Amino acid sequence: MAGMIKTTVRLKTPLRHLYFVSTAPSTAKMSLVVLQSHFRPFLGSSTSPFLSTCRKLHAGGDRHKSSPDAAPQRLPFSKVTEEDLEFFKKILPGRTITDPDLVESCNVDWLKSVRGSAEVLLRPQTTEEVSQILSYCNRRNLAVNPQGGNTGLVGGSVPVYDEIILSTSLMNNILSFDNISGILTCQAGCVLENLSLYLEDRDYIMPLDLGAKGSCQIGGNVATNAGGLRLLRYGSLHGTVLGLEVVLADGRVLDCLATLRKDNTGYDLKQLFIGSEGTLGVITAVSILCPRKPRSVNVVFLGCETFEQLLKTFQLCRGMLGEILSAFEFLDSECMRLLNTHLKLPNPISDCPFYIVIETSGSDTDHDAQKLHNFLEEAMTSLLVTDGTVATEDAKIKALWSMRERVTEALTHDGFIYKYDISLPVERIYQLVTDMRQHLGSRAKSVVGYGHVGDGNLHLNISSPAKDPALLAAIEPFVYEWTAKFQGSISAEHGLGLKKRNYIYYSKPSQAVTLMGNIKSMLDPKGILNPYKTLPDNLA
Amino acid sequence: MAGMIKTTVRLKTPLRHLYFVSTAPSTAKMSLVVLQSHFRPFLGSSTSPFLSTCRKLHAGGDRHKSSPDAAPQRLPFSKVTEEDLEFFKKILPGRTITDPDLVESCNVDWLKSVRGSAEVLLRPQTTEEVSQILSYCNRRNLAVNPQGGNTGLVGGSVPVYDEIILSTSLMNNILSFDNISGILTCQAGCVLENLSLYLEDRDYIMPLDLGAKGSCQIGGNVATNAGGLRLLRYGSLHGTVLGLEVVLADGRVLDCLATLRKDNTGYDLKQLFIGSEGTLGVITAVSILCPRKPRSVNVVFLGCETFEQLLKTFQLCRGMLGEILSAFEFLDSECMRLLNTHLKLPNPISDCPFYIVIETSGSDTDHDAQKLHNFLEEAMTSLLVTDGTVATEDAKIKALWSMRERVTEALTHDGFIYKYDISLPVERIYQLVTDMRQHLGSRAKSVVGYGHVGDGNLHLNISSPAKDPALLAAIEPFVYEWTAKFQGSISAEHGLGLKKRNYIYYSKPSQAVTLMGNIKSMLDPKGILNPYKTLPDNLA
Repeated sequence: MAGMIKTTVRLKTPLRHLYFVSTAPSTAKMSLVVLQSHFRPFLGSSTSPFLSTCRKLHAGGDRHKSSPDAAPQRLPFSKVTEEDLEFFKKILPGRTITDPDLVESCNVDWLKSVRGSAEVLLRPQTTEEVSQILSYCNRRNLAVNPQGGNTGLVGGSVPVYDEIILSTSLMNNILSFDNISGILTCQAGCVLENLSLYLEDRDYIMPLDLGAKGSCQIGGNVATNAGGLRLLRYGSLHGTVLGLEVVLADGRVLDCLATLRKDNTGYDLKQLFIGSEGTLGVITAVSILCPRKPRSVNVVFLGCETFEQLLKTFQLCRGMLGEILSAFEFLDSECMRLLNTHLKLPNPISDCPFYIVIETSGSDTDHDAQKLHNFLEEAMTSLLVTDGTVATEDAKIKALWSMRERVTEALTHDGFIYKYDISLPVERIYQLVTDMRQHLGSRAKSVVGYGHVGDGNLHLNISSPAKDPALLAAIEPFVYEWTAKFQGSISAEHGLGLKKRNYIYYSKPSQAVTLMGNIKSMLDPKGILNPYKTLPDNLA
Repeated sequence: MAGMIKTTVRLKTPLRHLYFVSTAPSTAKMSLVVLQSHFRPFLGSSTSPFLSTCRKLHAGGDRHKSSPDAAPQRLPFSKVTEEDLEFFKKILPGRTITDPDLVESCNVDWLKSVRGSAEVLLRPQTTEEVSQILSYCNRRNLAVNPQGGNTGLVGGSVPVYDEIILSTSLMNNILSFDNISGILTCQAGCVLENLSLYLEDRDYIMPLDLGAKGSCQIGGNVATNAGGLRLLRYGSLHGTVLGLEVVLADGRVLDCLATLRKDNTGYDLKQLFIGSEGTLGVITAVSILCPRKPRSVNVVFLGCETFEQLLKTFQLCRGMLGEILSAFEFLDSECMRLLNTHLKLPNPISDCPFYIVIETSGSDTDHDAQKLHNFLEEAMTSLLVTDGTVATEDAKIKALWSMRERVTEALTHDGFIYKYDISLPVERIYQLVTDMRQHLGSRAKSVVGYGHVGDGNLHLNISSPAKDPALLAAIEPFVYEWTAKFQGSISAEHGLGLKKRNYIYYSKPSQAVTLMGNIKSMLDPKGILNPYKTLPDNLA
C-alpha cells in the first residue's frame, strides 16, 4: 500500500477537501472552509463500500418509489474481476486504488446527496493510459464514471452503482501557454485555482471563476459547461474553449486540441463534449482562450425598491459602464434577513426590497472610477436606486461580495433547503420567486431569490424546518412547469447528472432528446460512459 | 409568370446584387459596389441551365483530371420530375421558380468560380414549408442545396449538379428583440446589414460584421460560422448564438431556439449546425446575443520595422487598450505597394515594412482617447512603431480602414490571384509569407500578406500575370503542408465547401473526419443535404 499512499500525497488537492467546500460552485470567489459542524466527513467511516448492498442516497426519495430523480435499476454491465484488477494494476502501477477508505471518498458527491458503491478508482496520468483503460472497459462491458474535482451539484460526478471511477486528478500538467494570444493548453485534471494562479503571474486570468475553484478541475468544468460569475463578461465555454482532446468510449483518441481562434475545417466536434457530463467521452486535455488580467476592480452595493427598477438599473449600467461591467448580481430582502439572522452580517446600506452587486474590471483605475461615478449619479438622480456604497479596496470589495456569496451558507442555517437553478428571460426571473411564495403560502419557511441578473439565472431556494415531502410535492413539478411556460431552462448551469435527467423534457423538445440519444448511441454504443446520467431513463 | 415576378420584387436584396460584391466577406465594412468592368454579369446570359450538359467552372481545373477540388461524379439522386414540380408549386405557389434566367443567378457563386445546373429554385417563407420540402425531397431522394446570400468563397453555397436550390431569402422576419438582454431572434434569411440597422436604432449592434453584409444572411453566417472583424472583441458564433431552429434532412423540425444565456439541459445540439455548411440541416431561425452599440470609435494606422515589433505592439495594445480594443489588423509593404499602384491610395504615413490598423470601441469618448494616447506614447517611445496617425472622425476613420479593406480590390488589378485563408499560432503568421516568397522566388508576381493579427488569421495572396498551373503546383500542397506543420487551419473562416473539402486532413486527424462522417450519416442518411461539400470524397 506504500506506493498508493505516495500517489495520494502527490495530489495537489487532497481528496478529503471535497467534503468541506462550503459554497455552491455557482457562487464565485468563495474559498474552501472547514464546516465539520454541518457535514459529517465520510473519511474513516466504518461502513465499507465492499458491502454488496447498495447504499445510495438519492435526493428526493427512495428509487423503489420511482421518483424521477431516483436511479433506474442497474444496467447489465460486467462486474470487476480479479483479472480486470490485474490488468489495471499492470497499466497503472500504484494508481489502481482499491482501498475502501480511499475509494469511498470518490463515491459520494460533496453535497452528500448521492452515493455510489465503486470498488475501484483508477488514476491515469496520460491520455494513453485513459485510452487503454476505456478500450479495455469497452471490450469487457465495464461501466466507467469519469470524475474531476467531484464538486457537481446534480449527482453527475459519482458512480450510481459499481462503475469504475476514472479520476483525472493526476493529469494536472500545463502543456503550453502562449503569452501573445493568451491561449492556455493543459491536461484535464488541472485545478481551476492553480490555473488562475499560473495565469495571474503572466498577467492573464481564466475566463471562468467558480466557488469550487479550489477543487474543481478544468476537464470537469468543460464537461459540465460550468458557468459562474465571469460568464457575463467573457461568455460561455462554448466560445472560450478552443480545443479538446477526448478519449472516446472505445479508447480512440479524438485530437481536437487546436490552439487557434478560427478553424472552419469541418464540423466543430469539440462542442459536442462541452456540457456532455462525461457521457460521450473523457476529456483529457483542454485549450482555452484567456483574457488579460484587469488592472482595476471596483464593487458597488445598491438598493432598489422594485425588481422593475433593478432591471432598469441593469440597462443603465450596461450602457454607462459598457465594456468594464464584469458582474451584475442580485439578492432579495429575504436573503438579507438570512444573512443578518444566521451569519450576523449587517446590511451595508439601508433596508430595501432588492440589492444589487455590480463589479467593474478595467485597464485604467481613473477611467473606471469616473464611469462608475457617472453611472451612480445617474442611477441616484433618476431614483432607480435608493441607497448604495462603493468599494475600491480589497477588504471592502470582499466584504461587499460576501453579501452575495454567503447567501448559500446563510440558507444552510435556515433548515432543510430545496434548491433550484433556473434560467429565464431576464424580465421574468423574479416573478418565479413571487409566484412561488404565493403558491406555497405558509407551507414554506422562507422562499428566497438571488442570482446572476446579467445571465438571466435565478437561484431559487425554499427552506422548511425539516425535510417535507408535502412541501416538495407543492414545489415540483410547479417550478418546472412554470419555467417551461416561459421557455426557461430547468438547469441553467448545474447540468442534469443523475438527479435531473428525467426533467429534461421541461426544457428540451422530444425531437432534441431523441437526437441526443442517437449521438450517445453513436459515440458510446454499449453505454459504458457515466451511465444513468444526463439522458432520461426512457432512452436508456 | 406574373406571380413569380411579384415574388422577385419582394426580395429585399435583389438577386443580381450578388454579382457585384467587390470584396471578400472576410474584410469588413465594405459596401456593395458595381464592378461590371471586372465581373461580367450572368443575368440575361444566352446560355440556359436547362442544357443537359454540365457547365461547371471548378477552380483549379477540370474535374476529370481528379484534382482535389474538382467535384466527384454525380451521386445517384433522383431527377426532378413534372410531378415533383406540381408538388412544389402546390406548397409554394408563386415561389417555385423554374425560369432559367432567375434560377441561373443562384447557380453561380459570386466569385464566379463554381457553377451548378439546378433547374428549380424554391423560396419558402416558413419553417413549415422548409419541413414539407425536405420531407418530400428525402422520400424522393432529391438532393437539396440550401442557399443564403450566396456570398461564400469555397463553392459551398451553389449546386454542383442539379440539386434543388432551397433559398432562405424570403424568410426575413425579425421574430423578437429583448431590449434588456440584447437577445435577437429572427428568421434565417434576414440580411446581416438589415439586422445591424434594426439594432442600431435600438442602441445595439450585431456581434459580427462582414464585407458581404449587404447580401449575406444570418442563417448562412451561422451555417458557415462566419468570422469577420468583430471576432477579436465579441468571440465566435459558437459563443454568441444562443439558439437555432433547424429542419433536418427528413423534414423533422429541431427546435433549439432558446433565448437564454445559460442552459445546461443535455447536449448543446445547436453547436453541431454552426459551421456545418448546410450539410446537416437547414437553419430556419437564429437567436443571437447582441452587444451594446459603442459610443466612441477610434482608428489608428501605425508602421513597424519588423513583424516581431508588430507582435510586441499587439501585446502592448492588449494590455493598455484592454477592454476597448476591437480590431488589430495588419498589412505588409507589398499590400501598400498594390494600394498605391493600382488604386492610387497614398500611404497615410511614411514607408514601413509593416502597417497596423487598430480600432477601439468604447462607452466614453474621453477615456478612449486618453487610453489611445497613452498607448501610442508608449509604443512610440519604446520604438515599437516608427510612425502613425489617428482618426476620430468618420471620414478619416473610413479612409484609414480602406487601407486595410481595399487590399482585396487592389489585388484584383495585379493579375490572376491564388487566395489562401490560413489560421496559425499568431507568432507564425508572417513566417508563412516570407517562406512562400522564398519558395516561389521569381515564379510569382507578388506574394502579399494581410489579415487579422488578433485572431491569428492570415490572408495570403499570390498573384501572377495569368492563370499558371506550374505556379499553382508550386504553391499547393506547399501552403497546406506548411500550415499543417505548425498546427494551423487551412481554412480559418471561409469553410471547406466544394473547393477545399479534400484538404480537410491537413487540419483534422482521420479519427475526427471519420466521426464527422458518422454524424452526417446519422442526420442525413441519404446524403441529400448539400452533397459534395465539406466532407472529403473518400467518405461519401
